[in-house]
Amino acid sequence: MLICSARDILAARKRITAFIHRTPILTNTGVDDEMSATIFFKCENLQKTGSFKFRGALNAVASLSTEERARGVVAHSSGNHAQALALAAQIHGIQSHIVMPENSNPVKVAATQSYGAHVVHCMPTHEARHKAAARLIEETGARFIHPSDDRFVIAGQGTAVCELIEDVGELDLIVAPLGGGGLLSGTLLAASHLLPSAQVIGCEPAGADDAYRSLQAGRRITDFVPKTIADGLRTPLGENTFAIIREHVPRIVLVSEQQILDAMQTVWNRLRIVIEPSSAVAVAPLLTGAIDVRGKRVGVILSGGNVDLSVLFDDLRNQAG
Amino acid sequence: MLICSARDILAARKRITAFIHRTPILTNTGVDDEMSATIFFKCENLQKTGSFKFRGALNAVASLSTEERARGVVAHSSGNHAQALALAAQIHGIQSHIVMPENSNPVKVAATQSYGAHVVHCMPTHEARHKAAARLIEETGARFIHPSDDRFVIAGQGTAVCELIEDVGELDLIVAPLGGGGLLSGTLLAASHLLPSAQVIGCEPAGADDAYRSLQAGRRITDFVPKTIADGLRTPLGENTFAIIREHVPRIVLVSEQQILDAMQTVWNRLRIVIEPSSAVAVAPLLTGAIDVRGKRVGVILSGGNVDLSVLFDDLRNQAG
Repeated sequence: MLICSARDILAARKRITAFIHRTPILTNTGVDDEMSATIFFKCENLQKTGSFKFRGALNAVASLSTEERARGVVAHSSGNHAQALALAAQIHGIQSHIVMPENSNPVKVAATQSYGAHVVHCMPTHEARHKAAARLIEETGARFIHPSDDRFVIAGQGTAVCELIEDVGELDLIVAPLGGGGLLSGTLLAASHLLPSAQVIGCEPAGADDAYRSLQAGRRITDFVPKTIADGLRTPLGENTFAIIREHVPRIVLVSEQQILDAMQTVWNRLRIVIEPSSAVAVAPLLTGAIDVRGKRVGVILSGGNVDLSVLFDDLRNQAG
Repeated sequence: MLICSARDILAARKRITAFIHRTPILTNTGVDDEMSATIFFKCENLQKTGSFKFRGALNAVASLSTEERARGVVAHSSGNHAQALALAAQIHGIQSHIVMPENSNPVKVAATQSYGAHVVHCMPTHEARHKAAARLIEETGARFIHPSDDRFVIAGQGTAVCELIEDVGELDLIVAPLGGGGLLSGTLLAASHLLPSAQVIGCEPAGADDAYRSLQAGRRITDFVPKTIADGLRTPLGENTFAIIREHVPRIVLVSEQQILDAMQTVWNRLRIVIEPSSAVAVAPLLTGAIDVRGKRVGVILSGGNVDLSVLFDDLRNQAG
């Protein structure tokens, strides 16, 4: 019995639609011609807070009981879940407490605080993060919202592909990046319900290939040191996301660091949008041919667009004098 | 008697709508909160070929007679007009000849060639460009398409604001960048017809302030050396665009180089889209307060997204090893 179903995703849509962006779907004739395919880019980088994570966080917050709302929510995150949960809580008038490691990007810390979050800094270790979150939960009674391995989070993430399918119709392939597995799980559940003929493919950095190896081993592998620029995909699969992904046996494609950067540059250049490396992981196998897209209609979920641009712009400022 | 009217813009829409992207209009809650305004960003950076120039070029090409079509089109451009005209010609099965200075960005040259253009290189001077174009016209009988000072080009550029007004309704302010004046002229003509209550403001780099000075002097000033990162706005006003702009007396706001870069970074960061410096020129005065947007509904035309990203990505590749 899976913890989340297509019915949960439909319920999530009702809860979150009024508060999220229905993100645009971009196409590019040049890319299509070169790939001999029709590729639809679902732009969750243009979602509020800059990633799909806002969907799941918002669904989780909107599903709280009145009693739980009064006590608030807690998460630990250095990245997109922090901002997503902070804004979701703010929208619902709930206090959020976010544990962020000391070495978090100051821009992300400021963004999280701007959404009214109570940010607590900790040492940049797993232990320190868990401990700080546990302390906050004890102090406040707030509910912990996991960034991926949560029923409501998974259901929320599945809403992106629902919009994609509604907007473009038939698809042969649906491609999504794979980290903690929330997005891929939600995508698998929704697509198998709405468009069972479409093949769903998960893309993982070769430098954080725990899902690939977990599916081969038949058990969840969590003891690995990720080494990838795709910071959103460094986390291991969760128990629930592993169970869902295992049940649907999607193809998993591994992507090298250079392929991630090439794909990121292609999207910035050709689509003129800012995507983060994690998004590029789902684009790379199309460009390299690792996924054969010829003659196919392909949906790609661009998961997020939060990149630290300060070095680039400091350089430009210096050049401009 | 102006060379272009709102009627020309409506005719342009009929000619080009099937071939262009109806570009998305983005909003950003965070930016709106900070500005105490509602700002609608019309994303012509997401237009085909990466800029609004495709609208005007396509309208010009679609307006050719059968005889003119057979002889092709000519332009000289190092930038967005080159790609725009090349694709417009390709769509209509017409040969394009584009003169590009030798120091043009290789990415833009390759893009122009990929649309089937016959690219002719020349020395990077005004004289060499004009001479090379004149020679091509003599040899081929092809029609010269000016990047901004052309009736059909101006009408095509005016279609962007038509879509903006249709999609968002009432606006207090409409803000656009100002270089050769094609976009601002078309915007003034369309807005004065569709939404006469809206104030249209043109934004110009202080380092290429010929339009500002021309309007003050009451005559077109063309002898200046532009010094700005906004490469799309270095060209002087044309005779026709000057006449249209002068008739509508819009406010012109000047923007410094640092303000351009700050605005560009804000848009990349907050909206997660790639805009070129010329687009940022129209955003900067909102952020600095030079244009008071408080309590207002504001439309901003983001004109293009063609930026050379190779240095940035080479750095990232070196870091990734």
